[in-house]
Amino acid sequence: MNLSLLVDLYELTMACAYFTYKRKTRASFDLFTRELPPNRSYLVFCGLDDILSYIKNLKFTKEDLDYLRKQKLFPDDFLKYLSNFKFQGDIWAMPEGTIFFAKEPVIRVTASIIEAQIMESFLLNTVNLQSMIASKASRIVEAARGREVFDFSLRRTHGQDAGIKVARAAYIAGFSGTSCVLAGKLYNIPVIGTMAHSFVMSFRQEMDSFLAYAETFPTRTTLLVDTYVTRKGIENALAVGQYLKEKGFRLKGIRLDSGDLVNLSKLARSLLDKAGLNYVKIFASGNLDEFKIDALLRRGAKIDNFGVGTHMGVSIDAPALDVIYKISEVTDERGRFLPTMKLSQGKVTYPGRKQVFRLQDRKGRYLKDILGLEKEKIRGRPLLIKVVQNGRLIYKSPSLDKIREDFLNDLSRFPKELRSVYSKYKYPVIISPGLKRLRQALAHQLRTRQ
Amino acid sequence: MNLSLLVDLYELTMACAYFTYKRKTRASFDLFTRELPPNRSYLVFCGLDDILSYIKNLKFTKEDLDYLRKQKLFPDDFLKYLSNFKFQGDIWAMPEGTIFFAKEPVIRVTASIIEAQIMESFLLNTVNLQSMIASKASRIVEAARGREVFDFSLRRTHGQDAGIKVARAAYIAGFSGTSCVLAGKLYNIPVIGTMAHSFVMSFRQEMDSFLAYAETFPTRTTLLVDTYVTRKGIENALAVGQYLKEKGFRLKGIRLDSGDLVNLSKLARSLLDKAGLNYVKIFASGNLDEFKIDALLRRGAKIDNFGVGTHMGVSIDAPALDVIYKISEVTDERGRFLPTMKLSQGKVTYPGRKQVFRLQDRKGRYLKDILGLEKEKIRGRPLLIKVVQNGRLIYKSPSLDKIREDFLNDLSRFPKELRSVYSKYKYPVIISPGLKRLRQALAHQLRTRQ
Repeated sequence: MNLSLLVDLYELTMACAYFTYKRKTRASFDLFTRELPPNRSYLVFCGLDDILSYIKNLKFTKEDLDYLRKQKLFPDDFLKYLSNFKFQGDIWAMPEGTIFFAKEPVIRVTASIIEAQIMESFLLNTVNLQSMIASKASRIVEAARGREVFDFSLRRTHGQDAGIKVARAAYIAGFSGTSCVLAGKLYNIPVIGTMAHSFVMSFRQEMDSFLAYAETFPTRTTLLVDTYVTRKGIENALAVGQYLKEKGFRLKGIRLDSGDLVNLSKLARSLLDKAGLNYVKIFASGNLDEFKIDALLRRGAKIDNFGVGTHMGVSIDAPALDVIYKISEVTDERGRFLPTMKLSQGKVTYPGRKQVFRLQDRKGRYLKDILGLEKEKIRGRPLLIKVVQNGRLIYKSPSLDKIREDFLNDLSRFPKELRSVYSKYKYPVIISPGLKRLRQALAHQLRTRQ
Repeated sequence: MNLSLLVDLYELTMACAYFTYKRKTRASFDLFTRELPPNRSYLVFCGLDDILSYIKNLKFTKEDLDYLRKQKLFPDDFLKYLSNFKFQGDIWAMPEGTIFFAKEPVIRVTASIIEAQIMESFLLNTVNLQSMIASKASRIVEAARGREVFDFSLRRTHGQDAGIKVARAAYIAGFSGTSCVLAGKLYNIPVIGTMAHSFVMSFRQEMDSFLAYAETFPTRTTLLVDTYVTRKGIENALAVGQYLKEKGFRLKGIRLDSGDLVNLSKLARSLLDKAGLNYVKIFASGNLDEFKIDALLRRGAKIDNFGVGTHMGVSIDAPALDVIYKISEVTDERGRFLPTMKLSQGKVTYPGRKQVFRLQDRKGRYLKDILGLEKEKIRGRPLLIKVVQNGRLIYKSPSLDKIREDFLNDLSRFPKELRSVYSKYKYPVIISPGLKRLRQALAHQLRTRQ
């Protein structure tokens, strides 16, 4: 699908006005969020890969232009401009998997104001979904304390694109795999599946369904035991486990999808162990999230793997990130960049070309971030790196596995309090002296000018 | 994008086991939801159009099959079967825009059990998103009491597919248009846009930005007045309104995006009216939902149009529908359909081939629905109609405008209490005597059998 029209109309009408009045104006925009959503003490940046491929492929086709012409909004010279449109600016971004906080720009675009404006809708849409999901998924991985977690959310993600992007973002955040086959194919993520209740119900006896599945996949069978009476289901699974064992195979697992997961998992574990099937894993699913997983494990549930669907796949407690894309500087008549900012009530922004600096101690543990001006001399690792220069990609995304590994390693360097499910910890993000001064001076100047 | 692999892996592993053990078995599945989400007294069915096109185009390509082969899960004969896969069953569905309630199947699939199973992930994903959004959007339209509402959600919808599907579903529910240009192009929905704060900020003075926009779009300018000091912004808009008037044009509107919308809109209305600009519309936006719109109007806000984004676009108070796809009957060895049901704790289903009957009084007002067996003689209009027969499409979707019109007309026939924003009203859905009897007998039989 050509994505050039996946844009809010006003980006194009503004671009058209710029085309007449500000054709040579350049500007910088920051993509960031003013506040962390509820229950979040950190966010995980994702979506850069899609953004780079969007930038590379962005093109208004004849069909697109015909549609725009029919709106009777745009003069011909502007449509002609769009027909040759190509992004030619610079983009700075955090690498995918970077942990970020409120106020910190994750992307900075510096370009002709027309080009920078037209990007807005796509950039926000992409970062909103993917960072929101990675952030939620990371909490669930933390709650599972080393146990494996799998993405089962395809049926409740918001549409087809979300189906695959959620699987990818969750994998970056530490999930071990997904049920979504297309995501597996596109991103080389491990795919996993068990069986559904309908499978069990389509056979006359539960046992018949278990045997049919086990015969078909003797090395990869996880039996769903709660369709009728869970205790009976576990006993049937034991019998299948023994049967496979006699044939030289190992039953992989059983799945609990309803009922009291603490007691059922304890019961299953003890019955499995007594039957010499200690290698059979107990898999739990059913509207799980980080809070439920945390509670299950605190209460001693004997669960080895979690399947997590809806709650992760729609980030149910925070189904939107308040990501925004705000202009921070713009050139004057002589082409000099002048910082700018918004003053609307409760919606103030930070002016100028900024950088995020992350400070660590000698052992590599992160201490705080400083949001400063790009040119300020500040200790700490700068998180924004240049990925597009004059419209040309100068950054090669690491492999998905490398992104995942870097993220998990990075997360372990933050204070432990950050990672607790019920964390109220606020990682320090300091505004640099230079940025503070600029902001105050500019606010005064703008209020006077208007 | 080929969607055959947009499927949970277990659909394919189950299909593979069916292929060995139940190749000739046929089954029926119902797609429904057990409960309405919070704050919902009705749901609006959407997604059929995408489902029919999925059914029509579903095909496992060589590339898909190569990927599946690499999983080392599936025997060659099953992959060969998939290479020739084509849905050949029957589908019954409610027309798009039909209002539905808990327990009521919106789709029923009767097919070879393999084919019916493989549909599951896509059907759920599609109905979940589109019905969830139409249901939320309808509440917002009701809250606006005849004022126009526009979809501004693209930047916060969950990805690209959601971006366009949300616009479509909201339009069906009564929205007047969308900011998403691609949705406008694909579905012929009116597109709309105003201007962003960045536009205003890119000019030295607010007034310069207003004039530039007004000169570019003299008949379609809505000025965003809250970038700096809203009262000053309104005054600047007045001046632009006068200027356009002198040139023979009409300023279309002003937009308020922050602050106290009640008082600001009253102020704006009175200033506009005094200046002879009573035709200028007041447009409000900024994290609006049905509750806020209802409150604004109760408090006398002078708002003509609402732009609604995030809250509608992610259905923020209920970002997932608990839609499920459950087997309801399956053939025995002799090919006879036998009803079946699930008994898991809290997850019981209704067996057999069902129909939803909607009863009305002489004036066409809806009284109640009856969920019954297809063969039962029940008064009332059957809501499920056959849309696919032996794999062939036998239903032509109405135009989007017709779907929208039918929906709005249909909604007006329900009790008024249903449509209030704070409604606790529960529309009666009765289980027919035949279905009740079947369910009791079958529950007993299944418990005994296992």
